Amino acid sequence: MGALAYWDWGGEPMRVTLLSGGVGGAKLALGLYTVLPPGSLTLIANTGDDLSLFGLRICPDLDTLAYTLSGRVSEQQGWGVQGDAYSALEVTRELGGTGWFNLGDKDLGLHLFRTEALRAGQGLTEVTRRIVEALNLNCTLLPMCDQPVPTHVLTDRGDLHFQEYLVRERTEPLVRGIRFRGVDRARPAPGIAEALEHSDLVILAPSNPLISIAPILSVPGMRELLRAGRGHRVAVTPLVGGRSLKGPTDTMMTQLGLNVSPVTVAELYGDVIQRFVLDEVDAALEPQITALGVSCSVLPTVMSDLAAKQLLARALLRLAV
Amino acid sequence: MGALAYWDWGGEPMRVTLLSGGVGGAKLALGLYTVLPPGSLTLIANTGDDLSLFGLRICPDLDTLAYTLSGRVSEQQGWGVQGDAYSALEVTRELGGTGWFNLGDKDLGLHLFRTEALRAGQGLTEVTRRIVEALNLNCTLLPMCDQPVPTHVLTDRGDLHFQEYLVRERTEPLVRGIRFRGVDRARPAPGIAEALEHSDLVILAPSNPLISIAPILSVPGMRELLRAGRGHRVAVTPLVGGRSLKGPTDTMMTQLGLNVSPVTVAELYGDVIQRFVLDEVDAALEPQITALGVSCSVLPTVMSDLAAKQLLARALLRLAV
Repeated sequence: MGALAYWDWGGEPMRVTLLSGGVGGAKLALGLYTVLPPGSLTLIANTGDDLSLFGLRICPDLDTLAYTLSGRVSEQQGWGVQGDAYSALEVTRELGGTGWFNLGDKDLGLHLFRTEALRAGQGLTEVTRRIVEALNLNCTLLPMCDQPVPTHVLTDRGDLHFQEYLVRERTEPLVRGIRFRGVDRARPAPGIAEALEHSDLVILAPSNPLISIAPILSVPGMRELLRAGRGHRVAVTPLVGGRSLKGPTDTMMTQLGLNVSPVTVAELYGDVIQRFVLDEVDAALEPQITALGVSCSVLPTVMSDLAAKQLLARALLRLAV
Repeated sequence: MGALAYWDWGGEPMRVTLLSGGVGGAKLALGLYTVLPPGSLTLIANTGDDLSLFGLRICPDLDTLAYTLSGRVSEQQGWGVQGDAYSALEVTRELGGTGWFNLGDKDLGLHLFRTEALRAGQGLTEVTRRIVEALNLNCTLLPMCDQPVPTHVLTDRGDLHFQEYLVRERTEPLVRGIRFRGVDRARPAPGIAEALEHSDLVILAPSNPLISIAPILSVPGMRELLRAGRGHRVAVTPLVGGRSLKGPTDTMMTQLGLNVSPVTVAELYGDVIQRFVLDEVDAALEPQITALGVSCSVLPTVMSDLAAKQLLARALLRLAV
């Protein structure tokens, strides 16, 4: 198929689904979004990071994906809206209210919209669809489920919501365990079964395996839908050279007694994936991956700019052909 | 007592309570606040205008009073925060959410604080006290009650929340009636009984009598507390020269079949007041007021600048001496 572009897949455009957390996953999402034909990308976002503040429903990973693909994201932060101000939160803090979670003014506008729609009885999937439409995005963005499944981190300072652990406590508490509260009652969001059934390629983003990808895989029925799909299932390593490029993946793995290695991540994903992508600097680990019965590819996975994101995206698309 | 300043009241500072709506009442509140000794002013605010948007509790009259006395108010508007931006609301509108009620970013910060505290189980009175303290205001600001009592306007276009009628529909529908929903279950907020008992002067602000003062007076027990207090009870006319200086008072009175006259307002207040203050341009109405068994004073009531606000405030304080 050498002469064919990667999206010429049996006469139909290639369909790709990405399971993703926030900042790290959004980089690959942008690479895929900008090289694939319009409409062929589905994103399934972790919503375990979601929180409720001031009665507002905040979905950091969904929003980071939407902001990134719509070009609104603060490139410096990787999350939030470019050039946003913090007037509202400054007043809230001044009055003595909760101020540890950064909420920009424009970002708040989206939370107001979502909260209003949820209160009116719409599901998170439907509300997200409306946001994607309003932002003129040519892709499908799905929460992992419509039910709240807050991720809690059990630490030496007690049971913390993941955002309390990450943002308020700056990952300082020692992690003893992780719980996805209420996940037993969750089910894959509307649209996920169809997306996975028809995807030619399913990618697990280089997001935190413990608190970004694991919540998605923990939704009852999700692993089965993944395994039943016809698409090639590939995970991209979140660890490069023995550490995570972004976020507390390495710290959390260490504190949970896990070996900080891509091999551990591949083991965690188990039979959900058929292939694992190592970074070039970790090429020596390839035999350990294949020993798990998982195919292995070695690629440049560090996405420092748009060209690097697109390069990785194209390389991943070729894996499915 | 000619040589004594108006606040030398039997050796104790004079205590004054103002029943008030938003913009118009806030003008007189500022006049009183800036001429009285610190701590001697109590404001009882209408909360019938309150609304819930995006799950946030918004209290326009309480906030207009707090913003005005703290010097934060947008002087051009008479409400909202000086120099505020509307970034959040612009995004909400862009996404297709409710955008008809103007919410500035800094203003939102206060609503976030209040909503969080209410959701934590604090009463509106307590939350308002915290706001007053954070803004370093040296007065007491009380909601008329802790219970929600939304004002609804029955119109030719149906039953509308007052803010829908005022802001969204720009007072265009014809008014057939007014209802204070749930007022039967309300009771005067904590602190009101004590304030009224010890006030030397109680003033009904030149606010809309139908939808700013009437809701306060409709709270069961409020009229009795007013009549039982030792203070002189004075209403300032909201009508000058046959029209309201601000807001739809005259329009609403006309549509409800009421004569648009200060005499009608004095009749509405009945035995709650002992004195009615006419504007100078309406001095000829004095006999009609006194015919109601109500004392009458004629004062310049148009508060175009701070000096005029203070002039009216001082004149009102002298009425109680």
